[in-house]
Amino acid sequence: MKGNTRQRILETGAEIIHLKGFNHTGIQEILKAAGVPKGSFYNYFKSKEDFGLQVIDYFEGFFASLSREIVEDTTISPLTRIKRLLKTFMAFFESKDFTYGCPIGNLSQEMGDLSPSFQVRLKQAMDALVDTYTGMIVEAQEHGEISKQLDSREAGSFLVSSWQGALIRMKIEINAEPLENHYTMIFKYFLKP
Amino acid sequence: MKGNTRQRILETGAEIIHLKGFNHTGIQEILKAAGVPKGSFYNYFKSKEDFGLQVIDYFEGFFASLSREIVEDTTISPLTRIKRLLKTFMAFFESKDFTYGCPIGNLSQEMGDLSPSFQVRLKQAMDALVDTYTGMIVEAQEHGEISKQLDSREAGSFLVSSWQGALIRMKIEINAEPLENHYTMIFKYFLKP
Repeated sequence: MKGNTRQRILETGAEIIHLKGFNHTGIQEILKAAGVPKGSFYNYFKSKEDFGLQVIDYFEGFFASLSREIVEDTTISPLTRIKRLLKTFMAFFESKDFTYGCPIGNLSQEMGDLSPSFQVRLKQAMDALVDTYTGMIVEAQEHGEISKQLDSREAGSFLVSSWQGALIRMKIEINAEPLENHYTMIFKYFLKP
Repeated sequence: MKGNTRQRILETGAEIIHLKGFNHTGIQEILKAAGVPKGSFYNYFKSKEDFGLQVIDYFEGFFASLSREIVEDTTISPLTRIKRLLKTFMAFFESKDFTYGCPIGNLSQEMGDLSPSFQVRLKQAMDALVDTYTGMIVEAQEHGEISKQLDSREAGSFLVSSWQGALIRMKIEINAEPLENHYTMIFKYFLKP
């Protein structure tokens, strides 16, 4: 039962933090939404910061489970996998009316320059995103789908950065245009033979 | 005197909000830092939200004054102006140890999907940024510095989005690498003849 309560607090907290940010979310608010008695939080987490770092683990696991099927699908070409992954996230954000954004990007923006422990953990999580895309870019280069002139790591890094910026724009445009603009520009001028 | 106090609250609030975000910044904290008596806030601002919207005006004015000299300098080529503007902001963030980020981007990330009045005002401010860059791109196309094949508005939009994303990455990398990556990629693959 202890494990279930911990998981319920994490899932509920992740949902609220994803929308409202870390500092704007109170522990009592999470416990109330999770239906967990006040005061039980510290049975599971050392501090709000400890909780926040575990929420990042949760987000990372969520991203991995959402993307694994596509990233590892060798029945489709590497470039098609990159495109499919972006389209999958575009559909996800459309289903959320273009709110939320990327939790790793949101927390990096909010906490990167306020908390050294968040900064370290978020850099790790963001680097893992870059690794995922860089790996597919290398494969696509081997398949002749992307020019080998491109430095794969620089390209993976830029793909992720520009995607994070498109997600910021999405929140104020409240439509898919910034994500579509990202997709068009990336594949028309950048990730191409 | 009234005008000076209002201006002092705005400047102090803008500084704190730029670093900590809107929801994480308290009115009392701003008044204390500004050395203004508690309770006087509502002589100048209708609400915290009203204040926040005026802080956006302040940020917009700050950006305009920082960039005007470069944007309007017709003694240098349009593409050189775009490059100089980005380099100026890179130097600004270096002087801030890679913290803060773009206040318009930060608030878009934080408030875009939480407050309709912020969303409208931030979209306006972000569109003005896009207009500034798009105008210089059009000029650069006329000067033969950037291919006319590029849709200038799409390119201006992508330049701003990808810059916003690079600023997020900067906060967790705590170095200039994400901004340099942005600069390299933009001018090597997009804004070129």
